[in-house]
Amino acid sequence: MFDPIEKLKEYVRHASVSADPKFADGMVGAQRFLTGLFQELGCKVDVIPTALHPVIVAKRIGEKSWPHVIIYGHYDVQPPDPLALWKTPPFEPTIKGGRIYGRGTADNKGPLLVHITAVARLLESNPQLPLNITFVVEGEEEIGSKNFKTFLKTNKHRLDGDFVFLSDTGIPTPDQLVVTVGLRGMLAFEIELTGPQSDLHSGMHGGVLMNPLQALAELCASLHTADGRVNIPGFYKLVVEPEPWERAQLKKAGLNKKQYAKFLGIKQFHTPLGFTPFEAIRFLPTLEFNGMSGGYQGEGTKTVIPSKASVKITCRLVPDQTPKKMKAMIFKAIRSRCPKGVTMKITEQHAATPYIVIPPDRSNTPKNQSLALAKCFRALDKAGTEVWGKPPLYLREGGSVGLLADLKEVLGLDAVMMGLFLPEDNLHAPNESFHLGVMAKGIETSQRVLAALAGV
Amino acid sequence: MFDPIEKLKEYVRHASVSADPKFADGMVGAQRFLTGLFQELGCKVDVIPTALHPVIVAKRIGEKSWPHVIIYGHYDVQPPDPLALWKTPPFEPTIKGGRIYGRGTADNKGPLLVHITAVARLLESNPQLPLNITFVVEGEEEIGSKNFKTFLKTNKHRLDGDFVFLSDTGIPTPDQLVVTVGLRGMLAFEIELTGPQSDLHSGMHGGVLMNPLQALAELCASLHTADGRVNIPGFYKLVVEPEPWERAQLKKAGLNKKQYAKFLGIKQFHTPLGFTPFEAIRFLPTLEFNGMSGGYQGEGTKTVIPSKASVKITCRLVPDQTPKKMKAMIFKAIRSRCPKGVTMKITEQHAATPYIVIPPDRSNTPKNQSLALAKCFRALDKAGTEVWGKPPLYLREGGSVGLLADLKEVLGLDAVMMGLFLPEDNLHAPNESFHLGVMAKGIETSQRVLAALAGV
Repeated sequence: MFDPIEKLKEYVRHASVSADPKFADGMVGAQRFLTGLFQELGCKVDVIPTALHPVIVAKRIGEKSWPHVIIYGHYDVQPPDPLALWKTPPFEPTIKGGRIYGRGTADNKGPLLVHITAVARLLESNPQLPLNITFVVEGEEEIGSKNFKTFLKTNKHRLDGDFVFLSDTGIPTPDQLVVTVGLRGMLAFEIELTGPQSDLHSGMHGGVLMNPLQALAELCASLHTADGRVNIPGFYKLVVEPEPWERAQLKKAGLNKKQYAKFLGIKQFHTPLGFTPFEAIRFLPTLEFNGMSGGYQGEGTKTVIPSKASVKITCRLVPDQTPKKMKAMIFKAIRSRCPKGVTMKITEQHAATPYIVIPPDRSNTPKNQSLALAKCFRALDKAGTEVWGKPPLYLREGGSVGLLADLKEVLGLDAVMMGLFLPEDNLHAPNESFHLGVMAKGIETSQRVLAALAGV
Repeated sequence: MFDPIEKLKEYVRHASVSADPKFADGMVGAQRFLTGLFQELGCKVDVIPTALHPVIVAKRIGEKSWPHVIIYGHYDVQPPDPLALWKTPPFEPTIKGGRIYGRGTADNKGPLLVHITAVARLLESNPQLPLNITFVVEGEEEIGSKNFKTFLKTNKHRLDGDFVFLSDTGIPTPDQLVVTVGLRGMLAFEIELTGPQSDLHSGMHGGVLMNPLQALAELCASLHTADGRVNIPGFYKLVVEPEPWERAQLKKAGLNKKQYAKFLGIKQFHTPLGFTPFEAIRFLPTLEFNGMSGGYQGEGTKTVIPSKASVKITCRLVPDQTPKKMKAMIFKAIRSRCPKGVTMKITEQHAATPYIVIPPDRSNTPKNQSLALAKCFRALDKAGTEVWGKPPLYLREGGSVGLLADLKEVLGLDAVMMGLFLPEDNLHAPNESFHLGVMAKGIETSQRVLAALAGV
């Protein structure tokens, strides 16, 4: 019998960090592991090269008339740094207190194995299962799925399914399933300000020129209002007000502000007027500073006026804000505020279009929604209720999974997202782990959904 | 005959970087070099331990009735980083185009050797020279002379001279001697802001809390007005307006704004209203950001809201601003502006009291000025005029040499500062060098000053 925990241990041991060439062996190891696993299931496997890390496509195709589900996952993981903060080795999976610890256990190796296990078990009991399945597993999700859109465009013929099924989003507690119905988009860029042609002594020259760090502070300070909104003309113009059912679902989640503040370790929230923190994360765009640097950063002092100063910014976008429209608006405002005495260079980094999918039977469900998609949503609602003991919630999430908009744009396919990781899973942080109880319920739920799709 | 260039080469080869324990051998080497050199001159040498790097005291004492000059220098140098930008090895002195290149050639090994050479030559021709001389050479000037004040307090008996003579300040061009009559003080500190208890994912949590980087930008942006002044109540209250003779001396220097802007590589100055850049550097205090950091600073993006953000600040102070008074005022203003949602920690770093010494025969010369000091100033004016072909200028400088205020406070002694380094000497930067023509004129000038003091 297929043992998902043993498989997950083996999978996690492959240190598949896509961002760092040092981990090339781990990337290849993870690819081989998956290829073997899909072949065990009887799939035909292709490892398709891209400009960087290949995409694995595994197909179990029978009759053309069967429904066809595409299951997405990614085999790459975040870097394990800072290593010193791990209590167990990041690539030596360790089970403790009902959890499995290790880099990638939750993001995304465990959740992908949930669906692979579901398929394995279904095929064990029913080798003739009338369901076409395509697994598509990429290796660049943690570095922005840079080559995935190109892959989609040149491999449309391999991805002629009805919709996409995946688990790469979250749940609030181990007993509440969430069907994720939207993710924010993203616009990432870096601003570099240059003042004097080289670093200067702050005694010999201090007080006669605009210090690039001062210019940076003044520019950045201009980008928010005191009440927590982004201070760029038109920034909120394209934001679509959420439907009443969305707010109602969010209320049902029973999220607790006090607990959330405690989790974050903050004394007060800083949310635009009229929005709870839980609404703000899901329904509003942001402009966040991710890193600022310039001058001397070591121990003690260095009396320097730096030549350059820079800031990394990401904006999270919500429907109907496209990166293209927002970029023009944001860059224009920022350029117009460049302090005198410095020059500005803006470098674009990655971008993702916000994504939203409306479940069936809602006030704003599109009239032409695909039958297979609606069937999957309904099957997930039923299976989720049965396995988890209460109906799933339909919530948007604050993060970004840019490939969802790409799947929609290139293949015309929507996604059914079964949330599986918990806030305490420490994604992208030391001591990442995956909840074994959630894993078991996820497998059972996925198995029921796929069986229902197959009509068995 | 004493060859100052060969001696300087030997001296520079000792990599005496005080900031970095890796260079311990270089520190000891430089101490031994100086000890040997002073012994060659017939001095009695003591190497006096401090909490970190020892101070070298070398004495040539004859009759009690002779004048007694204390010659100050420092044997430590700045770290050579960034190494890649050096055209010749930093600790392998190289002569090229009338200059000697190497770390410490100008700051302060060359200038100290100027005075040692002057003494050596005087004693060669006149072994009975009626002048008491004490050399005091410290090893922590580049790290803020941390233990020098304590050394002064416990070694007063060794330093019973009439005044201090030194060269650790600058001249504008190789043909213009400057007698430095004032230096700015300093107050260095670091502000750290803490928001959430750990770094957060900017998608999952962005938009609900005050980002410490945003708080830092807003705090820093509040510290200057648009017209280039420091925006802290009372900041300029203790600033003493310079005397007309000071402004007149500065005008005589013929400093050129266009050339200065070109040297800095800036298109425009950013100076408080009513002050030229040359006045602002000397007569006004500053608040400069020397380093800002927080969040992700590597290549590309990381969607993080950092837990902490920090800024390093130095204020330059002018008479009568004391670090103690200014600290209270500045910290109070900064604490009152701590943005909501973050906590603030201010760490004090080093401080230096501004220093000013008025030459004789000025409108504001103190009535009780010491005769020996006045004699040295007059001798330097005469020797400077003869050797350099025009009278020296009496100028303040923007940097800080904190020990001058300490010498005044602990020993009651003022300092005669003969400037010797040029803007293009690249102090604290790669490719530091010392102008050999300036060195020769410096030796000749010092020799004449010391001879005049001795009355020979």
